[in-house]
Amino acid sequence: MDDLSETGPDVDVIIERALAEDLASGDVTSRSIVPTTLTRRARMVAKAPLVMAGGAIVERVFARIDPQIEVSRAVLDGAQVAPGAVLARLRGPARGLLAGERTALNLLQRMCGVATLTRSFVDALAGAPCRVVDTRKTMPGLRALDRYAVRCGGGTNHRNDLGAAVLIKENHVRCAGGVAAAITAAREHAPHTMKIECEVQTLAELEEALGAGADIVMLDNMSDDEVRAAVKMTRETCGSRVLLEVSGGVELARVGRLAALGIDVISVGRLTHSAPASDISMLFELDGAVV
Amino acid sequence: MDDLSETGPDVDVIIERALAEDLASGDVTSRSIVPTTLTRRARMVAKAPLVMAGGAIVERVFARIDPQIEVSRAVLDGAQVAPGAVLARLRGPARGLLAGERTALNLLQRMCGVATLTRSFVDALAGAPCRVVDTRKTMPGLRALDRYAVRCGGGTNHRNDLGAAVLIKENHVRCAGGVAAAITAAREHAPHTMKIECEVQTLAELEEALGAGADIVMLDNMSDDEVRAAVKMTRETCGSRVLLEVSGGVELARVGRLAALGIDVISVGRLTHSAPASDISMLFELDGAVV
Amino acid sequence: MDDLSETGPDVDVIIERALAEDLASGDVTSRSIVPTTLTRRARMVAKAPLVMAGGAIVERVFARIDPQIEVSRAVLDGAQVAPGAVLARLRGPARGLLAGERTALNLLQRMCGVATLTRSFVDALAGAPCRVVDTRKTMPGLRALDRYAVRCGGGTNHRNDLGAAVLIKENHVRCAGGVAAAITAAREHAPHTMKIECEVQTLAELEEALGAGADIVMLDNMSDDEVRAAVKMTRETCGSRVLLEVSGGVELARVGRLAALGIDVISVGRLTHSAPASDISMLFELDGAVV
Amino acid sequence: MDDLSETGPDVDVIIERALAEDLASGDVTSRSIVPTTLTRRARMVAKAPLVMAGGAIVERVFARIDPQIEVSRAVLDGAQVAPGAVLARLRGPARGLLAGERTALNLLQRMCGVATLTRSFVDALAGAPCRVVDTRKTMPGLRALDRYAVRCGGGTNHRNDLGAAVLIKENHVRCAGGVAAAITAAREHAPHTMKIECEVQTLAELEEALGAGADIVMLDNMSDDEVRAAVKMTRETCGSRVLLEVSGGVELARVGRLAALGIDVISVGRLTHSAPASDISMLFELDGAVV
Amino acid sequence: MDDLSETGPDVDVIIERALAEDLASGDVTSRSIVPTTLTRRARMVAKAPLVMAGGAIVERVFARIDPQIEVSRAVLDGAQVAPGAVLARLRGPARGLLAGERTALNLLQRMCGVATLTRSFVDALAGAPCRVVDTRKTMPGLRALDRYAVRCGGGTNHRNDLGAAVLIKENHVRCAGGVAAAITAAREHAPHTMKIECEVQTLAELEEALGAGADIVMLDNMSDDEVRAAVKMTRETCGSRVLLEVSGGVELARVGRLAALGIDVISVGRLTHSAPASDISMLFELDGAVV
Amino acid sequence: MDDLSETGPDVDVIIERALAEDLASGDVTSRSIVPTTLTRRARMVAKAPLVMAGGAIVERVFARIDPQIEVSRAVLDGAQVAPGAVLARLRGPARGLLAGERTALNLLQRMCGVATLTRSFVDALAGAPCRVVDTRKTMPGLRALDRYAVRCGGGTNHRNDLGAAVLIKENHVRCAGGVAAAITAAREHAPHTMKIECEVQTLAELEEALGAGADIVMLDNMSDDEVRAAVKMTRETCGSRVLLEVSGGVELARVGRLAALGIDVISVGRLTHSAPASDISMLFELDGAVV
Repeated sequence: MDDLSETGPDVDVIIERALAEDLASGDVTSRSIVPTTLTRRARMVAKAPLVMAGGAIVERVFARIDPQIEVSRAVLDGAQVAPGAVLARLRGPARGLLAGERTALNLLQRMCGVATLTRSFVDALAGAPCRVVDTRKTMPGLRALDRYAVRCGGGTNHRNDLGAAVLIKENHVRCAGGVAAAITAAREHAPHTMKIECEVQTLAELEEALGAGADIVMLDNMSDDEVRAAVKMTRETCGSRVLLEVSGGVELARVGRLAALGIDVISVGRLTHSAPASDISMLFELDGAVV
Repeated sequence: MDDLSETGPDVDVIIERALAEDLASGDVTSRSIVPTTLTRRARMVAKAPLVMAGGAIVERVFARIDPQIEVSRAVLDGAQVAPGAVLARLRGPARGLLAGERTALNLLQRMCGVATLTRSFVDALAGAPCRVVDTRKTMPGLRALDRYAVRCGGGTNHRNDLGAAVLIKENHVRCAGGVAAAITAAREHAPHTMKIECEVQTLAELEEALGAGADIVMLDNMSDDEVRAAVKMTRETCGSRVLLEVSGGVELARVGRLAALGIDVISVGRLTHSAPASDISMLFELDGAVV
Repeated sequence: MDDLSETGPDVDVIIERALAEDLASGDVTSRSIVPTTLTRRARMVAKAPLVMAGGAIVERVFARIDPQIEVSRAVLDGAQVAPGAVLARLRGPARGLLAGERTALNLLQRMCGVATLTRSFVDALAGAPCRVVDTRKTMPGLRALDRYAVRCGGGTNHRNDLGAAVLIKENHVRCAGGVAAAITAAREHAPHTMKIECEVQTLAELEEALGAGADIVMLDNMSDDEVRAAVKMTRETCGSRVLLEVSGGVELARVGRLAALGIDVISVGRLTHSAPASDISMLFELDGAVV
Repeated sequence: MDDLSETGPDVDVIIERALAEDLASGDVTSRSIVPTTLTRRARMVAKAPLVMAGGAIVERVFARIDPQIEVSRAVLDGAQVAPGAVLARLRGPARGLLAGERTALNLLQRMCGVATLTRSFVDALAGAPCRVVDTRKTMPGLRALDRYAVRCGGGTNHRNDLGAAVLIKENHVRCAGGVAAAITAAREHAPHTMKIECEVQTLAELEEALGAGADIVMLDNMSDDEVRAAVKMTRETCGSRVLLEVSGGVELARVGRLAALGIDVISVGRLTHSAPASDISMLFELDGAVV
Repeated sequence: MDDLSETGPDVDVIIERALAEDLASGDVTSRSIVPTTLTRRARMVAKAPLVMAGGAIVERVFARIDPQIEVSRAVLDGAQVAPGAVLARLRGPARGLLAGERTALNLLQRMCGVATLTRSFVDALAGAPCRVVDTRKTMPGLRALDRYAVRCGGGTNHRNDLGAAVLIKENHVRCAGGVAAAITAAREHAPHTMKIECEVQTLAELEEALGAGADIVMLDNMSDDEVRAAVKMTRETCGSRVLLEVSGGVELARVGRLAALGIDVISVGRLTHSAPASDISMLFELDGAVV
Repeated sequence: MDDLSETGPDVDVIIERALAEDLASGDVTSRSIVPTTLTRRARMVAKAPLVMAGGAIVERVFARIDPQIEVSRAVLDGAQVAPGAVLARLRGPARGLLAGERTALNLLQRMCGVATLTRSFVDALAGAPCRVVDTRKTMPGLRALDRYAVRCGGGTNHRNDLGAAVLIKENHVRCAGGVAAAITAAREHAPHTMKIECEVQTLAELEEALGAGADIVMLDNMSDDEVRAAVKMTRETCGSRVLLEVSGGVELARVGRLAALGIDVISVGRLTHSAPASDISMLFELDGAVV
């Protein structure tokens, strides 16, 4: 049970599919060049500052390729590391190391990329009691890993999927005939374990949502002034019982300001839909032979 | 047989998995709020300039959700569109539209993102006879779509996987005991249909690779001066029979310069490992009811 | 998009696996006896009173077997029917009807069984503002259908899975070192969309849970007197903001009493772990030939 | 190779799917509350009398969750146990124990439920040379386990699936134009390894079936008097070469009577379509810490 | 519901996997050369005499590739055709035709190969009341198709798998401590629907098997004289109630002789483990454009 | 990492599916007869001369069945062995040995069959610098193993799939409007790592292909005289830079002659579409008990 076990069984399917993409017909280069008996030592090294996330993915990828490969992790998930930091050490059959290298790096670079971007948003909170959370705008097929990486970066998660929480958005309101009607219907039919979250575009809608008993209100694309008014209205009528979430293209520079306004949650799609990969390489050691 | 059929059967697996991530326990919000009989019209709209890629993914996602949903594509893959452009029109049961919205958008935003970034590199060639190609640094599980999106952006593809071509990299050379030994072994064992590509770090290695009969040489992280010398050496000894590929963190600003130096191929990992998602939204039409 | 589409994509996997169990090597009896060109009419008939659930499963099973088979549903999901009621009419190739009969019936009988048992519990509420809900004690592999059948019977659902809601049970409390500690930790780490539910064994634990801010408290195996005291304590300190759920082998005879005590939710494992199958048969019509 | 290995490879698929249903997005409660390093001891205990079946399922479920969890089975499959009996002892990381608890219990309670019900039917035979057998009315997706549990209860199995044996039922007879025609066709086309079983509604059909060379005749919904006459007719014309099977809603109270009439086989759909789950719980030991 | 529907749902998995092997990264040749809008007519033609088997596989393969492709079968399964015979006509998008060509042909050539070889064995029976049957020595992954092809060739099937019938072989006898002990144990535990078949090496074992009540005896690698004696012993003691099967490298030339000796069944592994593929080609028509 | 690891992850899927075909409902014979505790020793023995291929498949099959079974390989892949040679020794639970026997043998016999046939073609080269290569006419679902077996027999592989190399065939030429047009289009769109191979029917087409810059030309069904002329034309205009491949029903007797004419590659579909299985048996040792 490694760090990733908390993400559920999907991780092994992700790895299986990633390996299938790259290795379906084997590795023709290694097969032609590298003797089966050759063993090597290798290192994965950060080439830029990053927040570590998914060290266990390296272990899992190579365990699938060849159980003889030993992976020794050098950094805990969640740690901030500097360029040049060794993230993991590996040793074993060279063919196996080469077969798994790209898949392991693709996954690790993705996860560190998400964690690193998340950390920058969390740091911008400067300690304010506000959450940075992800969205469902994750990379298709990689949601379990994306959400884990967000946690490594210090963020928390929004709902996992369409069945895990009620979130009434503009399109739902248009179907239900109004914010209050939608909230009431949701309250009646949804599991009693779920809070009811409702997106609003205006202060009038906010008022309606609060009146209908929303547990969370998402302020969609509001200006700072609107947000300030929304916080005021909410705290005056409902105290801290109702959570306020800001959403919609929030830039890093605005995070601190929003937190200072008393917002509870800032959701950021960019964390997962546009995180650049971290730069990590794997190199055989020059005297890499394993006796 | 739509545009994506050329990418192979993987696309349907990608869609299936993406839907499973989001819909495994249904859509509790719609189930609670939206009547089963309600139908709506909706539009997918570009909110920023982008290169279209993967319009068929929208059709395929909603066909899986509900065959009654009609999707009408408004833009061809590969087209450059301006903000506000309608990419697709949809009509059908509102529950189905809501169930597929996020999955369809996540996939489309990814693909347009890759195509848009690729186009910027291709445009930088300014017509020079040089290719911008992708790498195996694709998003795990999405390789088929990533490579298609690169083609939509005007790029071409490098090898699809470890079994599709011989690419001798630094780690292989270390295993084989030298560039020439590696190339010779590859020539002997690999299918006769494959060219032999070899990565080199120095001009000395380039000379060795050319002497051993490499078909393609990848110049790894070389300066412009080194690249210039490499082109000279290669053309003098092998003419245009040997292709030269530059790789390693190539910035957009350097692309035109490299092309002008006479390079045949520039491979860019960023196209797929760090492309930001395009911004696209789906909104129900205000008078969205479908009679 | 039929009634089952709200349960998510799992239904087709369930059908696929059920058919694979029964038809992996074909139907040797029909292959030997029934001409390929023979067509027949058939009816599915209730042989005992039942609440209908899963009519769409019949359509889906036969659509997979043979698209030429027409299924015409005669009863809406959620309807109470008497013995002898025709649930569905079918016509098409006899081989296909025979190949899908058992799989369709096994699924339908299960779903109607769950819905019928649920309805008996819901009826026992006699209109009181209290919910009968299911648990995670579903039949392995059939959760999506079990939960849908509970809804057909008039029940509502508890959390779908371990990732969909926080439910702190006795074993968690033992790990966390107390009810309050567990609730506080959950509040900090869990998504802000989730209510925090905590199971308690005693009134002292209830008091602790209310003090720590639980949103829902599950009263585990408490006597009616304890339940009465729990309701009193909860309403006095928290009003109706905190939901009270009774759990633990609740018999049908006790449901009305509990509802009258002011409980919000009664969760009943039996709905899904021990529901007897409804009795339904499928018979070819005597003059069953389809001209 | 545990007891379940005789059921074929399906068991691991069943476990995989059951875990996927419950853990697709991880266990948010444990993740929030339980430290990763915490270890615990736990026990699975029968809370009512039951026949044990599927002890190996507990081992397999937790082996998938975390190989560090040790499971020690305390009761052999097929054993009758009293309330309070410990069925298995577990120790290992608390998070893993909590993650697998419900899935393991759901499966175990199902299997013990089927075995316990079967045993009650077998005991009612009071030693008569008659078999209690299952049917294809198994829980969709769980056939392999259901059939194994029937064997644990002392029953034997009927055919596994539509391809494993010939069973001519009323609908086939209607297609073939008569009992004799159906039997003759089956004899000609079916593998020579299969006996030919035919269902009959009347003594006249029985006579026809015996004349056509049926190896087994299923008496469908016949009264005791009809059964008596059927046995007489069969033994007089065919001796013990032809097996007689009674089917159709056989109640426990009738089993002994049927066996005494000289019936060879009683098939009981209820064993698998309506078996109530056995009551089993898993509790952490109070001083459960594993040093 | 086509001819292959009787083989069960495995066929679509076989096709899916076969296509995945060949098309995982698309068809680079067609993608580069063939316009998407181009349509063509094509024919599949026998280039040698063959027995047709699996015409529906062609329809299914191309239906998966592109529903716009029309396949028109020209020959029924089971028919003997001469070289030059057109087996199927196709028309539709050229890219789709090229994408499915090899997969369809590989499957069809395999199935016709098995059927053609089977037919030669069946013809050698010269009408004697004896069966030619297959074995479990099928091509891994293709059992459903192999068995169907045997039926197309006029053969019948032996048991489908290890769970479908009892076949006691030499290794089982060694485990059970003798032929009679093995048969008795099987009779007690196996489903009552299964005949008990036992392999014997000698006439003494045959006598033991008949005495213990075997339903079928397999004579393993016996000479014609031994076979003659075995038939005599069996008919004298058991009449035609016990079936005799000859197995073990039976050559085509010996088939008629064995049938004449009164054998009931001849099982031939070669039908499926060593059948040469039939020679079939697919060519675009010269004036192949579809207006 | 065994010999088969170079073939990619498909092998485990192949084994999984093969076992599922045979063991879906367990092994009823062993279950009825063989005690669970019984252990045995067994041997796999060649009954005819063969080239070994796929020894690791035996290990993998039994590792899936039961990790307690020990498999000891006695012959390296690629070795030529005589009848009677022991290929592998096994020991462990008798039930597991019996459960895996047929699946392991079916796979091994197939692979040795392909390797043995390939070796006969390679030997016919008599050392000439010419390759014997396979085609895509592999057994559906077994391509990875077929290609590996060809390598064990001394052959090399052609392209793995439609995405791995450009091969312009007659049907493509008809679509493109000529050999030169097709080659030019392929050069422009296909990855720069791929050689362009073109099939030609005549010397005129060969000339056109050479002029258009084909890297490999496949001479389809040409006579020896045509081949001689083709070699002459090619060497005179392109030297050894262009490879010549002969294809189309090449008989063993012609291989040496073609090699002597200066052909580079001979592709032989028969290697994989019509290889007879090697004859291998598995027998328990007479004193097979393992103490």
